[in-house]
Amino acid sequence: MKKFLITGFSGFVSRHFMEYLDKHAIDSSILGVDIATPEFPLDNYRHVRCAYQDLNLLNRDDIILTLQMFRPDYILHLASYSSVAYSWKQPIISFRNNTNIFLNLLQSVSDLDLPCRILSIGSSEEYGNVAAQDLPLTEDHPLNPVSPYAVARVSQELLSKIYSEGYNLDVVMTRSFNHIGPYQKSTFAIPAFANQLLELKKNGFHCGDVIAGDVSITRDFIDVRDVVAAYYTLFERGMKGNIYNICSGNGVTLKTVIEMMASLLHLKINIIKNLSLIRPNDNKIIIGSNQKMTTQLGWKPQFSLEQSLRDTLGI
Amino acid sequence: MKKFLITGFSGFVSRHFMEYLDKHAIDSSILGVDIATPEFPLDNYRHVRCAYQDLNLLNRDDIILTLQMFRPDYILHLASYSSVAYSWKQPIISFRNNTNIFLNLLQSVSDLDLPCRILSIGSSEEYGNVAAQDLPLTEDHPLNPVSPYAVARVSQELLSKIYSEGYNLDVVMTRSFNHIGPYQKSTFAIPAFANQLLELKKNGFHCGDVIAGDVSITRDFIDVRDVVAAYYTLFERGMKGNIYNICSGNGVTLKTVIEMMASLLHLKINIIKNLSLIRPNDNKIIIGSNQKMTTQLGWKPQFSLEQSLRDTLGI
Repeated sequence: MKKFLITGFSGFVSRHFMEYLDKHAIDSSILGVDIATPEFPLDNYRHVRCAYQDLNLLNRDDIILTLQMFRPDYILHLASYSSVAYSWKQPIISFRNNTNIFLNLLQSVSDLDLPCRILSIGSSEEYGNVAAQDLPLTEDHPLNPVSPYAVARVSQELLSKIYSEGYNLDVVMTRSFNHIGPYQKSTFAIPAFANQLLELKKNGFHCGDVIAGDVSITRDFIDVRDVVAAYYTLFERGMKGNIYNICSGNGVTLKTVIEMMASLLHLKINIIKNLSLIRPNDNKIIIGSNQKMTTQLGWKPQFSLEQSLRDTLGI
Repeated sequence: MKKFLITGFSGFVSRHFMEYLDKHAIDSSILGVDIATPEFPLDNYRHVRCAYQDLNLLNRDDIILTLQMFRPDYILHLASYSSVAYSWKQPIISFRNNTNIFLNLLQSVSDLDLPCRILSIGSSEEYGNVAAQDLPLTEDHPLNPVSPYAVARVSQELLSKIYSEGYNLDVVMTRSFNHIGPYQKSTFAIPAFANQLLELKKNGFHCGDVIAGDVSITRDFIDVRDVVAAYYTLFERGMKGNIYNICSGNGVTLKTVIEMMASLLHLKINIIKNLSLIRPNDNKIIIGSNQKMTTQLGWKPQFSLEQSLRDTLGI
């Protein structure tokens, strides 16, 4: 029986992680913590026992108590205020709820001398604006964060290194690229577009408008089910103190994604630009290299973009 | 009349900064803020009017009130928990009192839309362990922080960039190397050695033991009076959003510094290694390049190492 503490439990990644454990018959006990109650069932599994606890990671005493009580073998640290747009509006709150919460967690594990592996989830945003000739980005590419959120993630990663090397904590780090797949909230771009298209379909339209920001930006989308498989791989075989890109290795424009979804729904669409949705200083193009994960750890993405989009649309 | 807000006022740098202003007949009004009361006189100056206020930069509301009331033209942000050793013992407190306080300050200036230049003081520790062939370090050398303190400083610098580029704040950044000179507290290495030597002298010895950690490490020592001249230069002519090394450009070992001070006092000494004073993971050698400051801004260090040590010893 493996014990996982999952922070940021109420997001959509933890749910896929549990489904992964269950599907692979990995007997597990999960303690999920978050400041928001999960909106998904906790008792759907054969091999996974799961409990939820309200926990604010800004509160060190509560972290200590939880760790003492549960004594996890693994910590999947998903907790994050992950919106770049929000970080521009509320940089202090964003920073605190990314970097400070993580520092609290690391220090608590260190104080308790808990023998557990911590997976620190980072972001492709850490790379910032990059030159076309540097694509796809490998893990040794210099970081150039261009938003408060990205700075917070770089700080988190630097702290991970310190705790791994200086305090001998078993920390493994990721830079995770844009997630797609089922259950993602419609505050994210792809499900928001999916909802617009499904709405047209539901109302019997065969064509219509989709409102979007800058659809020319290129991102490396990776299915959340491939992401959680990578996380499990890292718990099992990741190298302590190492950083791993979690990505598909392919770049597509938002325009392509929207058009592919429309085509899957047999809709003819017209993309309308809404300037208020365009973010200043946004990275034009991000594509990662997943060579380190594939060659060193044998992980490989399994889901095609089309499959991910079908499952996002629920068709 | 120029208005300067100085954070971390009760340290020894602010005192030299005021002496610099006074000596150069720059009519100035200073509001010094700190959590510790200054232990130096505030009314020694002809051209500088000075007030002290108790202010904890962790408290955003108090920062806002202070900024609204004083409306500085310049902010000299010296406040820092600058001990590397302390940061290993209390990483959370160190991080908060370096990075979070600075983020609070930046956001307060941004909220109030104050037209003022902020000088963000960083540290040579940001460079971390470097290869001999990369010396002297220029500002474009990659950062590789190897202590919690250094991570906090890198985070501060990354935030400075974001606020300069993303929020259009007038921030200039330094990476300041090891300070020497009068008034420095004996919690720092050089004044601690100076005190050991002066004690021997005072007691009439002509020779004796000096207890030290690893004296083979090489540092770039810069006189604090050259440092404050550089800071004033940056307020006047530094480029917004730019980073400047503040250093002498020369590396000396701690051993050399101790021996030079002993020689100035006509003392024969024997250096005794105290292993408990040796820090894990310490950078062996740090030497900066001050080309950017000298060629772009015309600043140049004026104090020789011998002069600095004489003045530190008070001889």
